[in-house]
Amino acid sequence: MRKINFGSGPAALPEVVLKEASEAVVGYSNSGLSILELPHRGNYFDAILEESISLVNELCGLDNNYEILWLQGGRLQFSMIPLNFLPNNKKAGYIDSGHWAAEAASYAAFHGDMEIIASSKPSNYNQLPTLHHPINPELAYLYLTTNNTIYGTQWKQLPQVSMPLIADMSSDILGVERTYHQCALFYAVAQKNIGPAGVTLVAIHKDFIKKSLPNNSPILDYKMHTKNRSVLNTPPVFAIYTSLLTLRWIKKIGLSNLLQQNEKKATTLYNEIDRNPLFEGTVVNKSDRSKMNICFTMKQPELETQFLQLCTSQNIEGIAGHRSVGGFRASLYNAVSLNDVEKLVSLMQEFEQSKIQ
Amino acid sequence: MRKINFGSGPAALPEVVLKEASEAVVGYSNSGLSILELPHRGNYFDAILEESISLVNELCGLDNNYEILWLQGGRLQFSMIPLNFLPNNKKAGYIDSGHWAAEAASYAAFHGDMEIIASSKPSNYNQLPTLHHPINPELAYLYLTTNNTIYGTQWKQLPQVSMPLIADMSSDILGVERTYHQCALFYAVAQKNIGPAGVTLVAIHKDFIKKSLPNNSPILDYKMHTKNRSVLNTPPVFAIYTSLLTLRWIKKIGLSNLLQQNEKKATTLYNEIDRNPLFEGTVVNKSDRSKMNICFTMKQPELETQFLQLCTSQNIEGIAGHRSVGGFRASLYNAVSLNDVEKLVSLMQEFEQSKIQ
Repeated sequence: MRKINFGSGPAALPEVVLKEASEAVVGYSNSGLSILELPHRGNYFDAILEESISLVNELCGLDNNYEILWLQGGRLQFSMIPLNFLPNNKKAGYIDSGHWAAEAASYAAFHGDMEIIASSKPSNYNQLPTLHHPINPELAYLYLTTNNTIYGTQWKQLPQVSMPLIADMSSDILGVERTYHQCALFYAVAQKNIGPAGVTLVAIHKDFIKKSLPNNSPILDYKMHTKNRSVLNTPPVFAIYTSLLTLRWIKKIGLSNLLQQNEKKATTLYNEIDRNPLFEGTVVNKSDRSKMNICFTMKQPELETQFLQLCTSQNIEGIAGHRSVGGFRASLYNAVSLNDVEKLVSLMQEFEQSKIQ
Repeated sequence: MRKINFGSGPAALPEVVLKEASEAVVGYSNSGLSILELPHRGNYFDAILEESISLVNELCGLDNNYEILWLQGGRLQFSMIPLNFLPNNKKAGYIDSGHWAAEAASYAAFHGDMEIIASSKPSNYNQLPTLHHPINPELAYLYLTTNNTIYGTQWKQLPQVSMPLIADMSSDILGVERTYHQCALFYAVAQKNIGPAGVTLVAIHKDFIKKSLPNNSPILDYKMHTKNRSVLNTPPVFAIYTSLLTLRWIKKIGLSNLLQQNEKKATTLYNEIDRNPLFEGTVVNKSDRSKMNICFTMKQPELETQFLQLCTSQNIEGIAGHRSVGGFRASLYNAVSLNDVEKLVSLMQEFEQSKIQ
C-alpha cells in the first residue's frame, strides 16, 4: 500500500511520474534500450536535455538569460560557488538562516574570505535573521538559502541588493512564488520539488558566468560545464529524465495552480496547528513560516510518541522532525496533495478528541 | 524490440536488473514508497548500502581493508585524488595510456606537481606505453587507467611499484581478473560494468586514507565521505540500488564464470577480426588488446558505412568507434552476452560473403 509521504527529501513524487519513469527503465520510447542504457551523446538524451532546459526556462521565467545546468552533487555547489565567484581580493556575504546556510558558509571559508552578515543561530534558527541595510556593496556576492528545511522558515521575498545574489532554492524551487531573475545564480537539488536524488539544477545568469574565475579544474568550473552542456561528466541520465517528467507534470497542472494548491496546503495545516490546543508551531513569527516544511511540536512533549504512532498506523511517513528541532515536520512539496494534508489534519483532530475524553 | 547494445557506456545492463529496478520505481519492497522517494537515512537505504559494500568487498577480495564509497561524479575523482593525496612538496606520476588517463593527468596539474612517466600518445595510443623501471620512488602516487575505453588497450597486470598505486578501473572493474589489493585507491564509474550512470565506486585502503591531506572542503575530502558513510551529500539512491542489483547478479552467476565468459566473448570477436580479410584490429600488440572494448576497422574504409548499416538493420547498437579512432568498437561489458557477440561475428561473416560474391 502506497504511503502518504511527508519526508523532507528524497521526497514524494507524483504517481504518474513514477509510472513513466518505471516504464522507461524497461525500455525508453522506441530506442530499444532502457533509459539506464541510453547513450548520453545521442538524439534521445539530447532531446531530454533540451526539453528540460526549456521547461526550467519557461517555468522560472528566465527569458533565456541563464545557463541552465544539470550537475551532480548538491553540496558540491557549496564549494563551486566560492571557487568560481569569490576572488582573492574580495569577501563573500552569507546569511545564516539555518543548517544548510551555515554549512554553505563554512565550506566557503575553505576557499576564500567569507563574512556572516546576519544570523539567527542564537535562537536556534526559529526565525529569519534581520538584514541590516545597506549591505556592504563590495561583497563579491550575497548568499542566501530561500527555505530552511530543518527549521521551517522561508524568505517570501528575495532581498533587493546591489551585489550578485546567489540562492540555494533546494527545498522550495517551483513550490512558491519566486522572482528567480533577481538571482545571479540559483540552484536546487532535485529530490524535494522537482525530481529524484542524484542531480542538481544550477542556473547562472549569462552576464554573471562571464565573471567566473580562471584556473579551476574543469570539473569545478561552471564555464566548462556550460560549454559542455552538462555532459562534461557522463550525466545522471535517469535522474535528469525523471526531473523532466516532474517538470512536465508541473506544466500540465499549471504552475500558478500548483502554487495556489501549495498555499492552500500550508494554510490548512498551519490553521490546524494554531487552532488545535495540543499543538504549536516552532517558528516565532508567522510571517517567517515556510510553506514547504511545516514544523510543529506538542505542548505536552510526552504525547509526541503517541501521535507519531498514530500517524504511522495510518500510513503516514516522514513526519518526525529533524533531531535538532524535535517534534514534527510535514514537508508539503509539490507532489504532496491537499488530500494528504487533510488526512493529517483529521488525525490531529482525532488525537485531540481522544485526549479530551 | 530490445537491441543488442555494444555501447561504451552508459552500457547494457542485465534484463533481470532492469526489471527489478523498474519495479522498485513503482514501489520498493514493502516500504510503501518508490525507491526514488526512499529516505537516505533510514533502514531500507542502510541495508542497500551495507549489502553493496559487502558485495564489493567480497567480489574484489578486499578483506575489509578498504573504505568503500559510492560518490557522485566520475571526473570529480580526477581532482579529488590530487587534492587528497598530492602534497605540495611531492610529485604525482601519471601513465598516459589514453584519453581518460591524459584527462586525469591534466586535472592533477591544476592541483599540484604532476609528471607523465610514460606515454603512448605519439602513436595515438594504439599500444600501451612502456614503463621504465625503477620508477621514481619519491612519487606521492602512481596513477594508471587499467582499460582504455576509446583505444581498446588494457593492462592485464598492474605494475609492481613501491609508491601507492591509484587506478581508474571505470571500464573493466569486475570484468577481468584483477589484483585489486595492489591499489591504494581504485575507482570506477558504474555505467559500464556495474550499474547505471550517476554514481562512482571508490575504494581506498584504510592505511592510505590516513595519509589524506587536511584543509580540503568536506565535499572534496575522502575522509569526510568515509566518516559519513557515503551520505555526506544526499546519495543517488536509485543508482546505488541498481548497482547493488548488478552486483547481486554478478555474484549469482559467479565472478569466475562471468570472467570466463568475458574471456570467451573477447576471444570470439578477436578471432573473427584476425581471420576475416575485411577487418583488422587497431591495437598494435595483441598482448595489449582490451577484453572489454574491442576496436577494429575495415581494410577498405569505404565499406565501413555499409557494415554499420548492416549492424543497425540487425538491431545492433553502439558499434561505431570513437571519433578520434574511427572504425568500430564493440564494448563487451558484463551484461553483453556471448550470444550477442556471436550475432556480431555472424554479421561480419555474412558481410564478408556478400563482398566475395
